[in-house]
Amino acid sequence: MYAVIMAGGGGTRLWPLSRTARPKPFLSLLGDSTLLQASVARLSPLIGMDDVYVVTDGRYAGLVRAQLPGMPGSNLLCEPVGRNTAAAVALAALAIERPDDEIMVVVPADQRVVDAAAFRAALAAAAERATGGELVTLGIAPTGPETGYGYVLAADDGGSTGAAPGRRVERFVEKPHPARAAELLATGRASWNAGIFVWRRDALLTGLRRFAADIELAVREAVAAGPTGIEAGYPLVRSTSIDYALLEPASVVGQVAVVPADVGWSDLGSWDALLRDTPEAATDECRNGRAVSIRGAHGAQVVEVGADRVLVHAAGGRTIAIVGIRDAIVVDTPDALLVCASDSAQDVKLVVDRLVAEGRRELL
Amino acid sequence: MYAVIMAGGGGTRLWPLSRTARPKPFLSLLGDSTLLQASVARLSPLIGMDDVYVVTDGRYAGLVRAQLPGMPGSNLLCEPVGRNTAAAVALAALAIERPDDEIMVVVPADQRVVDAAAFRAALAAAAERATGGELVTLGIAPTGPETGYGYVLAADDGGSTGAAPGRRVERFVEKPHPARAAELLATGRASWNAGIFVWRRDALLTGLRRFAADIELAVREAVAAGPTGIEAGYPLVRSTSIDYALLEPASVVGQVAVVPADVGWSDLGSWDALLRDTPEAATDECRNGRAVSIRGAHGAQVVEVGADRVLVHAAGGRTIAIVGIRDAIVVDTPDALLVCASDSAQDVKLVVDRLVAEGRRELL
Repeated sequence: MYAVIMAGGGGTRLWPLSRTARPKPFLSLLGDSTLLQASVARLSPLIGMDDVYVVTDGRYAGLVRAQLPGMPGSNLLCEPVGRNTAAAVALAALAIERPDDEIMVVVPADQRVVDAAAFRAALAAAAERATGGELVTLGIAPTGPETGYGYVLAADDGGSTGAAPGRRVERFVEKPHPARAAELLATGRASWNAGIFVWRRDALLTGLRRFAADIELAVREAVAAGPTGIEAGYPLVRSTSIDYALLEPASVVGQVAVVPADVGWSDLGSWDALLRDTPEAATDECRNGRAVSIRGAHGAQVVEVGADRVLVHAAGGRTIAIVGIRDAIVVDTPDALLVCASDSAQDVKLVVDRLVAEGRRELL
Repeated sequence: MYAVIMAGGGGTRLWPLSRTARPKPFLSLLGDSTLLQASVARLSPLIGMDDVYVVTDGRYAGLVRAQLPGMPGSNLLCEPVGRNTAAAVALAALAIERPDDEIMVVVPADQRVVDAAAFRAALAAAAERATGGELVTLGIAPTGPETGYGYVLAADDGGSTGAAPGRRVERFVEKPHPARAAELLATGRASWNAGIFVWRRDALLTGLRRFAADIELAVREAVAAGPTGIEAGYPLVRSTSIDYALLEPASVVGQVAVVPADVGWSDLGSWDALLRDTPEAATDECRNGRAVSIRGAHGAQVVEVGADRVLVHAAGGRTIAIVGIRDAIVVDTPDALLVCASDSAQDVKLVVDRLVAEGRRELL
């Protein structure tokens, strides 16, 4: 069993902390570890460091090596340029020499999981199910009719295969409207798609050849041609998600299963998610001046008077005073400052869009 | 006619911009000029630069000279230490050699006046009234039952002295409770005491000798002993306001008059006052990155999405993004950042109190 961690970048809505030069996986958003480090750590002891691979954009190779000094150097796969998750998964499947029928786990590098033991148990259950040849996705227990996530709808009949855990997937539903999200929840068969997949390596490659043959072929030829081949060929691979390219079409023909994972998951997609997810325990301390959620307390660098439900991320070295502010996020960095209402956290993307339009690369 | 500008310091509630090393009078809060510069400029042509004197704490002498290069050097009076306004007024009256019966105008260095012409007209009217020997205060037309100001209540009979403008003062009321403030407004005879006084030099000195003899004597002896005398004697002078020491007791015996001044006055006492007073015209521009009030616009250093009634004072050189925030003040400086709800602006003082308690002098 081995794991492939997808550390491609991203995190626009976490600007100004998340930047092109150091995107979300490489940030310490929730504690001392970076999200990448936490993603690796929570796999152990189910999957040890020698069996962990990281796929990343070449420009982040140095960050990965610095943050995962215990990982063998050859476990780092660099994309010359990001081509979305279908290409990255194909690259991992083709470039990493492991037995054909070995279980391969794919996990994003930028998520939060509260209960690591439950997470590993879910992976183990998914691996058991995947042994039969299905493509398995972890289904996160939904906490509400969120419209920002993809949903996995399990089949009505359960699609049980003997004693194996999980159920067959009836379909995927990408980012539903609110009414549709509520409908999905009401079925009792819906879960969130976290992009965490478990499959046999040969099952994956067979699936890719069937449903995304162009991607499988292009990546295979690039890998066969060695480093210069990847450099030249990889940028030409079709850019699409593994969900669109493989999971959705495979689910139509009944080849996808979902295994439930009630593990305290968050995609940490935007600052309000971080505010929501910052443990109450963090409210009375400054946590080395990084992430502070203020609810009537103050840390070494933060002075608050009458603040409530405010996330202060102090990365600028400055003293920050919060007075009478509620439901807000304050992110201070050396060259940019964000002050954002919790319910407008999605609009941080618009700020980044504007900076792009103004050509202010130094801030991206 | 000559003017004495009181530039002692203060402005705690305008932290983190207002600091011990550069307090409120020396800041550009509303435009390119500092408040001190604006205070001098609005006196002209009624009172020219040669007839303007500044009383300040010795440590601000350099700031005054730099900001008022056209003022004769001898027009700067330095206090070895601040001893409140009674001592400062006595110092000006005794140390500045002007004719005994000349009209002396006293104005604070840290206020805002929108209509400078009306202000000068009010001073001229007050000077006319003061010629008869009364102590005259400008009465600001109240815009509401504010509880943070001192009130001047004019006498019911008008106390007219022939054709001279203004009315006799019945009494001063310092920072009334809300109900009392409403009562005062209902009389139609109440105005705000802005600390702007007009009197004959000899009338002032006679009043001081009668109502604050200890202050007049101590300052006179200190001045008579020259610079070293001031250095040694001034710190021993009783510290109290000219209002308490002179105006209030003098009003009881009918020696104080009030001349109305409807001039667009603000004491700029806290950040919410600045937010309120920042002209609408400033909303579409960054004004050199200093004071920006955002109502759907953005400047070179400020990117906003869905912000409204937000004052951004960008003195830290950083790009500032404001997303979905309303009724707030953001003040960015190189070493300290304030994010404050408009209706909590008075509590900025509590932040400063806490920094004092923590011994964080570098931030004060």
